[in-house]
Amino acid sequence: MPDARALVGATVGRIREVDVACAAAAQRAMDQKTKPRGSLGRLEAIASMVAGIRGLPAPLPAPSAVIVVAADHGIAAENVSAYPQEVTAQMVRNFAAGGAAVCILARRAGARLVVVDAGIVSDLSDVPGVLDRRLGPGTANATRGPAMTSDLAFRALSVGIELVESVAAEGARLVGLGEMGIANTTSAAAVVAALLPEDPAAVCGRGTGVDDAGLARKVDAVGRALAANAGAVEIREPVGALAAVGGFEIGVLSGVVLGAAALRIPVVLDGFITAAAALVAARLSPACVGSMLASHRSTEPGHALVLDALGLEPIFDLGMRLGEGSGATLAIPIVNASLALLDEMATFQDANVTDAGA
Amino acid sequence: MPDARALVGATVGRIREVDVACAAAAQRAMDQKTKPRGSLGRLEAIASMVAGIRGLPAPLPAPSAVIVVAADHGIAAENVSAYPQEVTAQMVRNFAAGGAAVCILARRAGARLVVVDAGIVSDLSDVPGVLDRRLGPGTANATRGPAMTSDLAFRALSVGIELVESVAAEGARLVGLGEMGIANTTSAAAVVAALLPEDPAAVCGRGTGVDDAGLARKVDAVGRALAANAGAVEIREPVGALAAVGGFEIGVLSGVVLGAAALRIPVVLDGFITAAAALVAARLSPACVGSMLASHRSTEPGHALVLDALGLEPIFDLGMRLGEGSGATLAIPIVNASLALLDEMATFQDANVTDAGA
Repeated sequence: MPDARALVGATVGRIREVDVACAAAAQRAMDQKTKPRGSLGRLEAIASMVAGIRGLPAPLPAPSAVIVVAADHGIAAENVSAYPQEVTAQMVRNFAAGGAAVCILARRAGARLVVVDAGIVSDLSDVPGVLDRRLGPGTANATRGPAMTSDLAFRALSVGIELVESVAAEGARLVGLGEMGIANTTSAAAVVAALLPEDPAAVCGRGTGVDDAGLARKVDAVGRALAANAGAVEIREPVGALAAVGGFEIGVLSGVVLGAAALRIPVVLDGFITAAAALVAARLSPACVGSMLASHRSTEPGHALVLDALGLEPIFDLGMRLGEGSGATLAIPIVNASLALLDEMATFQDANVTDAGA
Repeated sequence: MPDARALVGATVGRIREVDVACAAAAQRAMDQKTKPRGSLGRLEAIASMVAGIRGLPAPLPAPSAVIVVAADHGIAAENVSAYPQEVTAQMVRNFAAGGAAVCILARRAGARLVVVDAGIVSDLSDVPGVLDRRLGPGTANATRGPAMTSDLAFRALSVGIELVESVAAEGARLVGLGEMGIANTTSAAAVVAALLPEDPAAVCGRGTGVDDAGLARKVDAVGRALAANAGAVEIREPVGALAAVGGFEIGVLSGVVLGAAALRIPVVLDGFITAAAALVAARLSPACVGSMLASHRSTEPGHALVLDALGLEPIFDLGMRLGEGSGATLAIPIVNASLALLDEMATFQDANVTDAGA
């Protein structure tokens, strides 16, 4: 897939550091608003960050899209999830029908929901509202060798880049990430363990709710997947880790992050799986970390490790562990509220309010 | 004011404990939704709490109102604020003109904003959009004796009860609290110090941003206010503390809490001042605590003490310290999102999704 590699390379080449002058201009504007300096706390920092990412001193509340990418995982055969593999397809049908948590939250946030089949075992090309970006009928079982070829890993990245370019062309200027894939916390844990690097036991959590024995199976499966792919020297490299132990949706989401950064569009992360995708993107382009906002800290232990490695502070912590983009979508109104404050609040001068902080 | 005392007494008498059967029914309904049990974290708990407060097994996302009550404080003469007293009136004009943070956040939340003059030094009865509920031209300086009479304290409570009855009659089923009043963190600290009880130094913070010398003046003023009113045996009683060292807006907000609880309407607290008002209400009616949701934990040290005393866990912590109702208003879309999830999410059965947690 020479085209995919070329697109990834060109996209990474277009990613720039955030515009610190715009971020500073936004903070100066916030300091003129009718409130004590800094009294809106993180909301001021978020508005300033978005200004830096967008390269605009006063970005407006943004049309937003939540890109939810689904795929199946060969490693599900290791009995690492509380749910059977068929639930991936069932939940994607639920996304398309509007009944899942992320659908309700997207409607309330006014965000467009984009549902993508990146490689579910059962073909969902008959389901209206699901984009067909299938890279195969699920990945191979990583405990027996690579989850996918290196070519497929690059193709996953390129699919993500093209997806975000498409939603940006249709107007989105703020993108949330979401995912669905039974066993994908196991794949994400393996990617994170390979890249940080970190012990499998430190990055594995209960996912959708496995018991102690299930958690032990996850830790074991991650260890065996890393061992089975240890011959691949690139397992400590982002695309190598993605191919060896990752997942199609993880790769596509990494591509979304890269593409968004190249377009200067802020990306709101969700839980552990999207954080693993962000880590892959960050290792391909350290500058793209500047485009990331962390919505929340889930209860998966690996999530906190990745957020720390990326230097990201979550906006809230509501004990969520659903994934799907539920946390990212809940954060979008907060991000847009910060931009509305920047845009709409009166200044001390406008409102004839005495500025004691001047 | 026998009418005010009678209204407060009757309102307190109508407050019931939350309906645990409705709260449990909402949680059971959440457990049938297409997601692992408990995976929406606090959002599930919030929906269940609202069900218990409303006494409905499946409350819908609610029309909301943010009641912002403003007043001036005689204790401002002790030089305890970074801002001059005239800023109270200036900011209320800014609220009425739509330029303050709470206005922007209320618009985004779809919440009605109700701005109330409970006793600002300058008369704002000429300003459209400001409700005249004036109890006087600011309170007296509490370092020299009671801030207000006991009759006025009861009248403040009754004003709050009538305000929330009025917004409820117009449809609101979710109420946020906000306030404005230069020096009101000092009054709130004195009320909290009297009622918990607690040392003045433990409950005083930097408010709008006083320096170390200003903070020392606050601690000293709170200590002197408590000492000056120590002869009033009721200073450890809620209405006694309110009259001795409180503020008009604090009393009105306490009344809003009581009235809302009697109407089974959830009340979203904001920062330290609204927490102090909630503490007064809780001491008048322990059952009303069940109707409270804490939006955030501000940087004021006394805020965390009151939330702990009331057993409330904030929804988020964004380092905010503005007041005005900004935190409460930012939380309203989160509360309503939790109710939308309860109402709109598909069940495992509806969506034909395999329920591994059954």
